[in-house]
Amino acid sequence: MTSERLDFAKTLAIKAGDLGLTYFRRLDELTISAKGHQDLVSEADRDVETLVRDEIAKAYPTDGILGEEHGVVAGTSGYTWVIDPIDGTANFVTSIPQWCVVLSCVYEGQVILGVTHDPCHNETFWAAKGQGAFINGKPMKISDSESLANGSLGIGFNGRTRAEDANNCISALIDQGGVFFRNASGGLMLAYAASGRLIGYVESHMNAWDCLAGMLMVEEAGGKVEAYSADEALEKGTRVVVAGPGVYDAVREIAQKSFA
Amino acid sequence: MTSERLDFAKTLAIKAGDLGLTYFRRLDELTISAKGHQDLVSEADRDVETLVRDEIAKAYPTDGILGEEHGVVAGTSGYTWVIDPIDGTANFVTSIPQWCVVLSCVYEGQVILGVTHDPCHNETFWAAKGQGAFINGKPMKISDSESLANGSLGIGFNGRTRAEDANNCISALIDQGGVFFRNASGGLMLAYAASGRLIGYVESHMNAWDCLAGMLMVEEAGGKVEAYSADEALEKGTRVVVAGPGVYDAVREIAQKSFA
Repeated sequence: MTSERLDFAKTLAIKAGDLGLTYFRRLDELTISAKGHQDLVSEADRDVETLVRDEIAKAYPTDGILGEEHGVVAGTSGYTWVIDPIDGTANFVTSIPQWCVVLSCVYEGQVILGVTHDPCHNETFWAAKGQGAFINGKPMKISDSESLANGSLGIGFNGRTRAEDANNCISALIDQGGVFFRNASGGLMLAYAASGRLIGYVESHMNAWDCLAGMLMVEEAGGKVEAYSADEALEKGTRVVVAGPGVYDAVREIAQKSFA
Repeated sequence: MTSERLDFAKTLAIKAGDLGLTYFRRLDELTISAKGHQDLVSEADRDVETLVRDEIAKAYPTDGILGEEHGVVAGTSGYTWVIDPIDGTANFVTSIPQWCVVLSCVYEGQVILGVTHDPCHNETFWAAKGQGAFINGKPMKISDSESLANGSLGIGFNGRTRAEDANNCISALIDQGGVFFRNASGGLMLAYAASGRLIGYVESHMNAWDCLAGMLMVEEAGGKVEAYSADEALEKGTRVVVAGPGVYDAVREIAQKSFA
């Protein structure tokens, strides 16, 4: 059942991304309802989420759906889709071409598939449990960096946890000769970590729709992921620490020291 | 003379970007000569720089040229081109589609034009002294944010100045409810500041080829730029503090407190 849902998810993510892109390209006309900088939600976000929900409900009417905007729809099949129609909305609303559609699916406490589609660059990252991770059909390769000084670490920042969390990480990272990266799309940065573009990614709290897909990709690309419970993440989000095997211990130590 | 050189610079930046893009797309084949993470220089960088230097020398044989890789070529016309063939090389070498070609021209101590071309998104940002700033032909508009809590501030980080400079900025910014952004291309972040995508940008030291174009764009788009000397910047770089008028004082205060 995974491979059927994976194909469905890839097609859907691209379709949703295309819809988002039409909005992105005529951004000046959009009506933005601001509810704080980090949580800017655009019409596009809502419309893309509706598309994603409708398509899932049509294809898999007994699957559950969890997303940011419209909450949870319980299912009976045991499968729960976890969706972020536009990850990186702060970028989206300011015309920065760094945002993505993130879809994942959880079954019996396991993330079975994850898809992150970046419409501005036509890049689709995906993974299925036990079946590897791919970018536009080519296998993804986690970073082989052996040192924090070799490569950039993605640092997440959000309005939900202690303001100093991200700052502590950056401070500890710089102390060790490292370089930080934050392009304001956690979904994209996790996909970048999985594909070796970043050596890893840390954030003190992410919601399930932002992180489950990317954490599976990192695992399937040969990276290390700090233990988490998918079921707990669905309920209340999770801390995220992922990295290439050569730097994981150092990255995890930074997170341990930096987060409350 | 400015408008002729501006047209030339726009055409050249796009041509150079196209050449860079052909390398970027077959990245796996590239030979990378690593000289530290921040200074990764690729074959592409050198080839694109050669193209830019050759075209300038052909069109304006008596103009000077200053760039990162091959140093300065003195001119006799009074015009000095300042070039960064690939800004954001760390992104370039890791396949992150966030890099740009930056060209500017200085005459009698004044930056008379600046062009930043982003080939991955086909966006060309440009400005000419006293003639406004444009993105793909449309006027650029600086951010009208009145608060650090409304919008993201670009934070530069480099291996040349105190490690804590960037960290201090981020800390001070977060304390005031702000959000930081660092996509590892200073040229692109300055163009984003000029076009209102970011509310501003600060970095404790930038080289002339990274910042002169962007600072002119910010000025011409209605933003504020901390006083600097173009001639001094050519020689040894400069500190960069730019922002929309509504947040400039607050941004400058952060820089004052954060930088040595």
